[in-house]
Amino acid sequence: MLDKSFNYVTFAEIFTVLSIMLEKPLRGIIPPAITPMIDNDTLDVVGLERLLNRMVDGGVSGVFILGTTGEAQNLSYNLRKELIRQTCRIVNGRISVLVGITDTSFSESLSLADIAAGQGADALVSAPPYYYTPGQPELIQYYEHLANRLPLPLFLYNMPSHVKVMIEPGTVRILSGHPDIVGLKDSSANAVYFRQLIYLLRDNPEFSLLVGPEEMTAEAVLMGAHGGVNGGANLFPRLYVDMYQAAVDKDFDRIAVLQSRIMQISMSLYTVGRYASSYIKGLKTTLNMLGICSDFVAEPFHRFGHAERETIKKGLIELGIEV
Amino acid sequence: MLDKSFNYVTFAEIFTVLSIMLEKPLRGIIPPAITPMIDNDTLDVVGLERLLNRMVDGGVSGVFILGTTGEAQNLSYNLRKELIRQTCRIVNGRISVLVGITDTSFSESLSLADIAAGQGADALVSAPPYYYTPGQPELIQYYEHLANRLPLPLFLYNMPSHVKVMIEPGTVRILSGHPDIVGLKDSSANAVYFRQLIYLLRDNPEFSLLVGPEEMTAEAVLMGAHGGVNGGANLFPRLYVDMYQAAVDKDFDRIAVLQSRIMQISMSLYTVGRYASSYIKGLKTTLNMLGICSDFVAEPFHRFGHAERETIKKGLIELGIEV
Amino acid sequence: MLDKSFNYVTFAEIFTVLSIMLEKPLRGIIPPAITPMIDNDTLDVVGLERLLNRMVDGGVSGVFILGTTGEAQNLSYNLRKELIRQTCRIVNGRISVLVGITDTSFSESLSLADIAAGQGADALVSAPPYYYTPGQPELIQYYEHLANRLPLPLFLYNMPSHVKVMIEPGTVRILSGHPDIVGLKDSSANAVYFRQLIYLLRDNPEFSLLVGPEEMTAEAVLMGAHGGVNGGANLFPRLYVDMYQAAVDKDFDRIAVLQSRIMQISMSLYTVGRYASSYIKGLKTTLNMLGICSDFVAEPFHRFGHAERETIKKGLIELGIEV
Amino acid sequence: MLDKSFNYVTFAEIFTVLSIMLEKPLRGIIPPAITPMIDNDTLDVVGLERLLNRMVDGGVSGVFILGTTGEAQNLSYNLRKELIRQTCRIVNGRISVLVGITDTSFSESLSLADIAAGQGADALVSAPPYYYTPGQPELIQYYEHLANRLPLPLFLYNMPSHVKVMIEPGTVRILSGHPDIVGLKDSSANAVYFRQLIYLLRDNPEFSLLVGPEEMTAEAVLMGAHGGVNGGANLFPRLYVDMYQAAVDKDFDRIAVLQSRIMQISMSLYTVGRYASSYIKGLKTTLNMLGICSDFVAEPFHRFGHAERETIKKGLIELGIEV
Repeated sequence: MLDKSFNYVTFAEIFTVLSIMLEKPLRGIIPPAITPMIDNDTLDVVGLERLLNRMVDGGVSGVFILGTTGEAQNLSYNLRKELIRQTCRIVNGRISVLVGITDTSFSESLSLADIAAGQGADALVSAPPYYYTPGQPELIQYYEHLANRLPLPLFLYNMPSHVKVMIEPGTVRILSGHPDIVGLKDSSANAVYFRQLIYLLRDNPEFSLLVGPEEMTAEAVLMGAHGGVNGGANLFPRLYVDMYQAAVDKDFDRIAVLQSRIMQISMSLYTVGRYASSYIKGLKTTLNMLGICSDFVAEPFHRFGHAERETIKKGLIELGIEV
Repeated sequence: MLDKSFNYVTFAEIFTVLSIMLEKPLRGIIPPAITPMIDNDTLDVVGLERLLNRMVDGGVSGVFILGTTGEAQNLSYNLRKELIRQTCRIVNGRISVLVGITDTSFSESLSLADIAAGQGADALVSAPPYYYTPGQPELIQYYEHLANRLPLPLFLYNMPSHVKVMIEPGTVRILSGHPDIVGLKDSSANAVYFRQLIYLLRDNPEFSLLVGPEEMTAEAVLMGAHGGVNGGANLFPRLYVDMYQAAVDKDFDRIAVLQSRIMQISMSLYTVGRYASSYIKGLKTTLNMLGICSDFVAEPFHRFGHAERETIKKGLIELGIEV
Repeated sequence: MLDKSFNYVTFAEIFTVLSIMLEKPLRGIIPPAITPMIDNDTLDVVGLERLLNRMVDGGVSGVFILGTTGEAQNLSYNLRKELIRQTCRIVNGRISVLVGITDTSFSESLSLADIAAGQGADALVSAPPYYYTPGQPELIQYYEHLANRLPLPLFLYNMPSHVKVMIEPGTVRILSGHPDIVGLKDSSANAVYFRQLIYLLRDNPEFSLLVGPEEMTAEAVLMGAHGGVNGGANLFPRLYVDMYQAAVDKDFDRIAVLQSRIMQISMSLYTVGRYASSYIKGLKTTLNMLGICSDFVAEPFHRFGHAERETIKKGLIELGIEV
Repeated sequence: MLDKSFNYVTFAEIFTVLSIMLEKPLRGIIPPAITPMIDNDTLDVVGLERLLNRMVDGGVSGVFILGTTGEAQNLSYNLRKELIRQTCRIVNGRISVLVGITDTSFSESLSLADIAAGQGADALVSAPPYYYTPGQPELIQYYEHLANRLPLPLFLYNMPSHVKVMIEPGTVRILSGHPDIVGLKDSSANAVYFRQLIYLLRDNPEFSLLVGPEEMTAEAVLMGAHGGVNGGANLFPRLYVDMYQAAVDKDFDRIAVLQSRIMQISMSLYTVGRYASSYIKGLKTTLNMLGICSDFVAEPFHRFGHAERETIKKGLIELGIEV
């Protein structure tokens, strides 16, 4: 009993320390890391080290693992847990680590969260359950139940193209009142939605509003967003950090130059092939060509073949990048 | 080395035995079982026994666990595995056991499949991965890779409302050529789609075509379907078995009587409340009122409150059922 | 004043006569006629005569002009009005004429309806307004206002793929109480929806339930539908009339033979090309090859080129039809 | 023959004059005018005068009639034509007049365009045909055929929520090469889409990129858009013109103040009631309370009742506006 109480106190203390570590609101570029893999059940740990160190060197504020870009849903739980452990070990407190716990099973979300907390991660991220489509009142109840049980602060994750439901602005407003719900990442690309969030949360300056699509990060930051969770920052972290800073500084000459490059990357590297998986395959192929990690993609997807690799290569050459 | 080879042979033999057990094509009513639960992590084993025994007594051909009606995606893996074990134990070979292994993670699907095979289940069922939307060529590759690795025959599961993609008729036709893909359950409610399947698979009489929505089972069987995976057979298994038999017998007087009752059940018990979860909550509330099992629903959903229970009760009374 | 009153009485009498003419419920095959055209503003009157006479000879109960198959929305109002006039002239009371008045503009719907009534058409058909998506209460109000102003009985037209909204079963039930709303054509292909309609309207035997997709007409009629509005009946009216009769007679041997042929037609002639317009282009190309009418398609679509024509030709040869 | 040739020359000359009048690229605020009506077939001409004069006084660059906000699809063609005539008469060259010719019928689009040209309008606007969903190659062909036949320059109109298809960035790029296609209005609210357009059209500085949703106009202009087609400019034209100018001036303090007010308007006046029509009803009710015009809404919609009016009134009072 003494032990238990002692542990509880210690855990609370750790939690306090972690909470202090997480900037409120979280700002800057937080790349949604791809998951380097050797095969369907094996992490490419060396590749992960190169990927994360490059991000830290590039000036990012944090890293978000096990998101959509990270193929989280396609990975086994063992691999997800290994990724959490290795990421926390490699990052070692240099930047914030956000861990995706999005799951259709409440219990599995909690299990991932406990491992993240145990390894020293800073926050959790969760999109709505994505098999059965919940209504908004069901979503509110779900996130409140979840946040009540989590050992770390939670970011909401709006991703309607994959989960079939928006976390509506009014729902976000209600949930933002929960002490452990500290921000939202929006991947809807819907600028009206995002402006509504900024407006509705104007009295809550600690609530972090982050935007997913890199094409719209500059304008979102100009209008009040706190940062971007941009896939391209896997490839060229410094570029996205510079863009973020240019937007913070309202340096429009610099924004124009950087935005143009970001659009070129987005339109040449993410759109090879015909399916929703083109974006992930494009990122991994590029990283592989840059010598950072394996281009293995988890089932049900498969790495690009020769023709698509050549197209990516051509895109990189047009970007002036040697491969 | 000897041991290994010995085990392998044994396994192959078991597999052969199991394959013989599974009727080809599988016919009749195979209820998609709800999952009786005491709380979010605990199976209601006594309830499960009552549920399954009632199904067997009702004349069903098999039971399908861990489908959409079974809230599979909302359950922890421990609970899913426990459900497989308990179901196989209770059924004990009296009917076929089909186990849902639908998962976004290929590895977790394989893991569930191995447990199902180890416990003596008869077949597996898998809807497409449901977070990232695959294209049809990606689906073909996915199912072929999956079937190559599975220890039991596989049923495809078309469920576009939940997984965002149809398994198109041409895709089914290609996959039906795989020796271990033995059937399809269609929950799209799309009669044109189903007619196209029947037409395209007319040369493959062993391929089982099963229909999900109970409202259309009679007509589907009249036109060549092999059976129904009907949720209402959790409640009144004999009724659905009788309807199936009436359709096989082309006994239209009997069909008219039974169809009318099935429609009354569907329109009064599944549509209480406002969300996609109404159907599952309605089934569980009714089963609870019938004294069969708990009405607990896994997160992110929650059992009906008093008002909805009263509406269900009224529906049952109108059906002439004492509660 | 006398004149006015006299006119009113006359009009009411005519209306009564017309109402008597329309069978209640309307039964059988009512082809949704394609619109034969010479160019974007000119009807192919000779082609229309051949088309309609062939339908009458084939035993259809009526013809439905200005539906989706008729490209109604793509035609100028002058052409629509000319089509109404010519159709009524050619048909000359031999079968019922149903005229589509689906329009986003209430006033234009009324205008088309008045012309239809003036030319001696028997009934009107209207899908929901299709630019702004109405809610169900808005739909109820819309159809009631419309029916109150129409000079002929009205069929509802459920076509969610084109108009973005279902006429939900509860809405149909309410509207079926209006004395001038006499039936519904369902093109959703959703068998659960159609079964719900049959169930909800079981006490209204005069309300005609017609099914659009020819692939599901047989089973719908077996289960209580009154007929089919099947596109293929433009091509081979007798085949669809025979199928309808076989379903009425519950002659399953005959259904099997005819259904197989209908599936072959549907899967070989309607799916050439890649867009939603393939079905209309396929029908018109086939009719052109059969020597019935021009294959001109109204803007924004265009007739098939050589390659697609060859594919259609091949399909017809496989069907044993000389071209 | 001489006459004909003379007319042709004259017409070409007029067209040249008109083309010179239209700023390239068109910049600023171009309100999508509501259509003031007395009843379903009668324009509220006095209301229209007040509405348009207020816009001109507010500093708008043009007015867009017969768009989505203008209920174009719900109006009879007579009313649409009357609206074109009255608008051109009232505006009398003070600002540009853009006329919506969006129609499912190519011929009716041409007919509206001819009237617009005859009355001295400056440009035309067309969303894709919205009943049958065209593919992108069909869209390209459609817009090229249309532009070839139009007497005035054409703006594309991206409105996927109503017409079911995006005019994809690659399609816009191809169409922007047509000499008479001079711009695009985007109502998708998709910021990634809009950034792609800006990037793809960076070498075409005369092509006007206008954004529909007022909530995102400021950021769009900051990033390179030329203006906004904002519904709220019906109510308070000066506010939106000021916002546009603040964005052009990169005056962030002023943007913050104006954006906050625009969000307050949007979230309190457009979201009363439950259907897609709430926005139009909200605009008309507010204009009626401001003493500008009738609040009549064309079928299938209907003006707000007492309760909704009170909610709008409350919103206006909170905005500090006397009614």
